[in-house]
Amino acid sequence: MVEPGQGPVGIIAGGQDLPFEVVEALQAAGRDYFLFGLVGEADVRIEFHPHVWLKWGEIGQLFRLIEQRGISELLCIGSITHRPDFRSIRLDLGAMRALPDIVRIMAGGGDESVLQGVARFFEKRGLTLVSVKDVAPSLVVGPDLSVGSDLAEQSKSDIALASRAALAIGAMDAGQGVVVAAGRILATEGPEGTDQMLERVSRIRHEKRARWDFGKEGVLLKRARPGQDLRFDMPTIGPRTIENVREAGLAGIVCAEGEVLCANRTHTIELARSNGLFLQAHALSDNAV
Amino acid sequence: MVEPGQGPVGIIAGGQDLPFEVVEALQAAGRDYFLFGLVGEADVRIEFHPHVWLKWGEIGQLFRLIEQRGISELLCIGSITHRPDFRSIRLDLGAMRALPDIVRIMAGGGDESVLQGVARFFEKRGLTLVSVKDVAPSLVVGPDLSVGSDLAEQSKSDIALASRAALAIGAMDAGQGVVVAAGRILATEGPEGTDQMLERVSRIRHEKRARWDFGKEGVLLKRARPGQDLRFDMPTIGPRTIENVREAGLAGIVCAEGEVLCANRTHTIELARSNGLFLQAHALSDNAV
Repeated sequence: MVEPGQGPVGIIAGGQDLPFEVVEALQAAGRDYFLFGLVGEADVRIEFHPHVWLKWGEIGQLFRLIEQRGISELLCIGSITHRPDFRSIRLDLGAMRALPDIVRIMAGGGDESVLQGVARFFEKRGLTLVSVKDVAPSLVVGPDLSVGSDLAEQSKSDIALASRAALAIGAMDAGQGVVVAAGRILATEGPEGTDQMLERVSRIRHEKRARWDFGKEGVLLKRARPGQDLRFDMPTIGPRTIENVREAGLAGIVCAEGEVLCANRTHTIELARSNGLFLQAHALSDNAV
Repeated sequence: MVEPGQGPVGIIAGGQDLPFEVVEALQAAGRDYFLFGLVGEADVRIEFHPHVWLKWGEIGQLFRLIEQRGISELLCIGSITHRPDFRSIRLDLGAMRALPDIVRIMAGGGDESVLQGVARFFEKRGLTLVSVKDVAPSLVVGPDLSVGSDLAEQSKSDIALASRAALAIGAMDAGQGVVVAAGRILATEGPEGTDQMLERVSRIRHEKRARWDFGKEGVLLKRARPGQDLRFDMPTIGPRTIENVREAGLAGIVCAEGEVLCANRTHTIELARSNGLFLQAHALSDNAV
């Protein structure tokens, strides 16, 4: 095995743009890479890069290529729309050999513990799972993300409440997103994800189940769970988040500095600006009040 | 003014069955009553009882009748589907006189503080706002609600987690309901209400965004917020809750003893039984862990 930071970065690629933004960042840094495109998820653009297509369960194939290519660092990135039904996955030979471990992971319960199991599974085989923060830090939002400067007092207190709520439920392993408007929690994010949560807020608005000053109040806050392993399912925003926040009638978005990915940053910022929304990264305290 | 407990109970009646269940309980207790049916909400069955129809904003009319009928206790009960847009309400003369108070209440911010304002508004006029607990305690669930006895260990820990989550967000004035399955928080309730939250869980299930053993795991927990004023918007379940819990693929429902109304109790219990769901009231601790 090669030393970490030496060989190519193996990228297990889900859908949309983020895998290619990571590739660009690696190219800019002069790092080599190899893409494992998930069938049914990854974009066909991986064809322009060193790659192979993989189906769920083709772990044997994955490990064969990892060894062939001298990969020691592995990154999982991109959206997963079709979560596999693990009971229906057809496993290849490598996966069959790994079955006892896999069963142990699957039986591990909640999401976070399953992911920890996946990480250990790879580590036992001499691989390091890395996060976007490690290999493409430019994609993670920092204090430089700052669209719309003067926040109203109401927005500031909404942000504080949203942050506390995200911490409280995050400590119970749920929710990277919270929507607060006019001092009231409108939604906390569950497994449905941010887009569906924002659709719900739209519906609350249209059904007049809560009152706020549409477009002038209300914030979507995104932050990691306390102690969250950022190598998996890092909180992410992008152009669609902006569209949905506008549609929901909120005033803007606040991300926790260093904990959130911004896909298509240039386009995302432009969209926020042109819609008059704020979009900022704040240093959020980890202490619940 | 008559002494509390003497004259008829004034019932501001929203939709569905609960106002009539309260009426039955009052009849059984030999208490007199008078119904103020909200136009567009209350069921036409109020025509069989002493009543008047009221539109939002007809506060003058309300107070005139309260005095005429010797009412000193007022109860708000029943579902409100069409929350009024307060800007479009046409106020009658009594409301015009009360306008300074009303504006103060409306400006009061979050839901709980608005409701406190409403309570004070009536109290200043010599009226006592009462809860269902005060006048029809038989509608509130107690330890006698116990369908399905032996809970699995997983259900017990799901209930504990749901209870903690409800407390945590409840302390921030949100959420009387939480859904947990297989150790994972699937949803917390916002202004959309319990039915829409359960539809969301159904969707999470059908989109395979979370795994649990459908119909055998998973709990809907209902409890009041810490310090919640039970005279308004008391947590409520009924036959539709059972249908939605079944549809969502959960194993049952737990209510906090003394904090939750059960509409149509006989039918609700029967539905839970025939669908193999548990439906229980538990004494839930008020101490977040």
